[in-house]
Amino acid sequence: MPNYNNMAKNLTKRSEDYSKWYNELVVKADLAENSAVRGCMVIKPYGYAIWEKMQAELDRMFKETGHQNAYFPLFVPKSLFEAEEKNAEGFAKECAVVTHYRLQNNPDQPGKLRVDPKAKLEEELVVRPTSEAVIWNTYKGWIQSYRDLPILINQWANVVRWEMRTRLFLRTAEFLWQEGHTAHATKQEALDEAKQMNQVYADFVENFMAIPVIQGTKTESERFAGAEETYCIEALMQDGKALQAGTSHFLGQNFAKAFDVKFMTKEGSQAHVWATSWGVSTRLMGALIMTHSDDQGLVLPPNLAPYHVVIVPIYKSEDQLNAINNVADTIMTSLRAKNISVKYDNRTTQRPGAKFAQYELQGVPLRIAIGPNDLENGTVELARRDTLSKETIDLEELQSKVTQLIAEIQDALYVKALKFRDQHITLVDDFEAFKATLETKGGFVSAHWDGSEETEQKIKELTKASIRCIPMDASQQEGKCVFSGAPSKQRVLFAKAY
Amino acid sequence: MPNYNNMAKNLTKRSEDYSKWYNELVVKADLAENSAVRGCMVIKPYGYAIWEKMQAELDRMFKETGHQNAYFPLFVPKSLFEAEEKNAEGFAKECAVVTHYRLQNNPDQPGKLRVDPKAKLEEELVVRPTSEAVIWNTYKGWIQSYRDLPILINQWANVVRWEMRTRLFLRTAEFLWQEGHTAHATKQEALDEAKQMNQVYADFVENFMAIPVIQGTKTESERFAGAEETYCIEALMQDGKALQAGTSHFLGQNFAKAFDVKFMTKEGSQAHVWATSWGVSTRLMGALIMTHSDDQGLVLPPNLAPYHVVIVPIYKSEDQLNAINNVADTIMTSLRAKNISVKYDNRTTQRPGAKFAQYELQGVPLRIAIGPNDLENGTVELARRDTLSKETIDLEELQSKVTQLIAEIQDALYVKALKFRDQHITLVDDFEAFKATLETKGGFVSAHWDGSEETEQKIKELTKASIRCIPMDASQQEGKCVFSGAPSKQRVLFAKAY
Repeated sequence: MPNYNNMAKNLTKRSEDYSKWYNELVVKADLAENSAVRGCMVIKPYGYAIWEKMQAELDRMFKETGHQNAYFPLFVPKSLFEAEEKNAEGFAKECAVVTHYRLQNNPDQPGKLRVDPKAKLEEELVVRPTSEAVIWNTYKGWIQSYRDLPILINQWANVVRWEMRTRLFLRTAEFLWQEGHTAHATKQEALDEAKQMNQVYADFVENFMAIPVIQGTKTESERFAGAEETYCIEALMQDGKALQAGTSHFLGQNFAKAFDVKFMTKEGSQAHVWATSWGVSTRLMGALIMTHSDDQGLVLPPNLAPYHVVIVPIYKSEDQLNAINNVADTIMTSLRAKNISVKYDNRTTQRPGAKFAQYELQGVPLRIAIGPNDLENGTVELARRDTLSKETIDLEELQSKVTQLIAEIQDALYVKALKFRDQHITLVDDFEAFKATLETKGGFVSAHWDGSEETEQKIKELTKASIRCIPMDASQQEGKCVFSGAPSKQRVLFAKAY
Repeated sequence: MPNYNNMAKNLTKRSEDYSKWYNELVVKADLAENSAVRGCMVIKPYGYAIWEKMQAELDRMFKETGHQNAYFPLFVPKSLFEAEEKNAEGFAKECAVVTHYRLQNNPDQPGKLRVDPKAKLEEELVVRPTSEAVIWNTYKGWIQSYRDLPILINQWANVVRWEMRTRLFLRTAEFLWQEGHTAHATKQEALDEAKQMNQVYADFVENFMAIPVIQGTKTESERFAGAEETYCIEALMQDGKALQAGTSHFLGQNFAKAFDVKFMTKEGSQAHVWATSWGVSTRLMGALIMTHSDDQGLVLPPNLAPYHVVIVPIYKSEDQLNAINNVADTIMTSLRAKNISVKYDNRTTQRPGAKFAQYELQGVPLRIAIGPNDLENGTVELARRDTLSKETIDLEELQSKVTQLIAEIQDALYVKALKFRDQHITLVDDFEAFKATLETKGGFVSAHWDGSEETEQKIKELTKASIRCIPMDASQQEGKCVFSGAPSKQRVLFAKAY
């Protein structure tokens, strides 16, 4: 059992210091912590249990859309890594590199080891920052004919991107993710796949995580290195900053050309294969925390809660505890029959108050407390984490009440986040208002843009806001660029972002 | 879809060259292949689907015994790695080492990259060959009091051990595994945990994978580096060589002392924590293949089969195909209602003969063929992979027949493997017979041993056989060492091993 002594209610308030609140919450709710390895985190059991819920649902959705899992090597030989130049250039500065394959005793320091200078690799190995290179080098051997296509593969893996400034879940040197890599006979099929997977991500994040997102495409400068189009889902955090929650890339024939992957078409000619890749990562944990949580700690949508309900006994005598144990058993049986997961916390090493504080901090959706009065009255106290409201419930109504509340909480969290998000999309038509909105209100600013990278960069320098996406469902509308005044055909969404 | 053109029946026979048969089978059955990275494999979708079945069942068993999953960093700083000296010494020669964190354009070769000499790490990072060091360094922060114990954590991860001679699944530079790491207040509790997890492994491998194992302890020279006792399960392959299928280690207080992990006991004193670790890996795929498969290809116990049943239509006209499609639909609905997984292979790009060959090679437990005669007679042809037998079955009997066969095949594979294994345990009392048995019959040789490392090493030099384990349930029996003639109290099991 982890130590919850540090769980007293001294969480920094969001209004005081949002960033500090986040960092404290991640650690105090037992989600993750920094490790001895620069920029790498330890995902603690409670945090990992939430990630497992995400994985299981995503995996189901990937398989339902025809994908299979596979596993490709952690290491990418440098010569493969550099084959697709844009991709290589985009990731070169963040690569951890293996140069040696052996340690030996250090003759100068007994009991210490050093790298064996004789065990230098002929070719350095890059620890994968993403797997296009090693996968497309493999696909080359799998694809000869149109009969071998499409290939629809996903991988669950760890990747490493050497970031200088790291934050738990949001930006870590090593993170966990899934990366889909598909190969297609036609451009249209690859485009459809990239869009389909972005839609899968949107459905997952909205319906399962209760986080509203906006689907769109990235500008050229924000695209994945090596992609011809990047689809994305963008979410809005409580502090008014955007967070990119998932991306799906149409890679054109770039990797097929870099790795010489051709196939015989139905008509008998040779053609390069079309590609997509798409991924979401443990960064989603950050999105989850910063969308729903409050000054009391984590708030979890029931879909992601390691357990929906916790039961805490309140007693003075052994006899009372025994009687409460019996009631708790009945409740657990009754709730589990409805697929509701329940934890009974009958630890004797902690007082009820400490337990309440812990589960509030950890965002357990519902808490049931059973005390001596409840025993007499055939009731329990039922507390709801998202609203912090409490009520006394007759035991016989408990099963239906809990079932109903679990659905209700999942919906309520989405509705609340959607309302906040929609209130934080501001249409702006001049640059002073643009700057003022970003400074005071935050959120997404919907503005006309002239389509040039120069304007995009200038705006970023002046305001720290980037173009989060060109929304997919936005109507075409004539206008003038908020910065340059040049003509524009569509509003795009700007925001400061994680 | 992968290319199955290479799947014609030209598999080397086991009797000709067992090793070649194995390598061909792994590739031709689409389980795995070598990658561009020395010693690292690509696990292909069909192979990965089998691994997922293993993962799901093991994960369920770990959780049922009170364990939670978590995730710890891929990298281990050298100073942490070397803290537990025996562990460090044992793995130092196999460590991939990250020395740099950036690539840059190579000024001498435009378009190529090189390691940026300015981006040298102050301290080298070892790619984890196992995670005791990084985990115990973390546990130090989690453990203050007896209330924080036990810690029962498992991790699913990739690890790297730089092997010079690699073979798909059996010995690869990178492999996938799970590693359990537990912390306890007492020696007895840690010993019980190590034994419990070895029993979990034995149950899993026997009941789920249909592979009989012998439980035992390792001799000191075969122990995990840093362990005080290593429990193991040993299986026997068809070529008479043993394979270590899983290990569970009692680590004493070695890691607690190396990382200074102490706790306050109930009585108020300070004590070092007791530890275990335990793991199984993708090596189990090798055990699976070499226990059950035959000259026609893979044979899968139904528990591990990505699909239990494949349906192949045989037709000349479009009308026949339509009629077969209807029958196949009915069969799928009927079988899926019994939790039997079914694949209908109605590809038009392959002939039935090629499909039969593919599924035989891939070990699908049952194959249903439906042809024009079957349409007339209301029958199907049902073929069983393990026995290669076929029979014609009335449609109305199919559901019950398939359900029964799936249970029967799972049992039959275990019984067959157990019979083979038991026939290959030979009691031997003199060294000439010992050598002759290993040369001609193979398998386990049960012999007396004087308990000295010297004898163990001499026997290994002379015969290539190692002590696989000191069986846990063996009766004590006075005897004389098969090599030295010195007194012995128990027989141990020798074998050549993978």
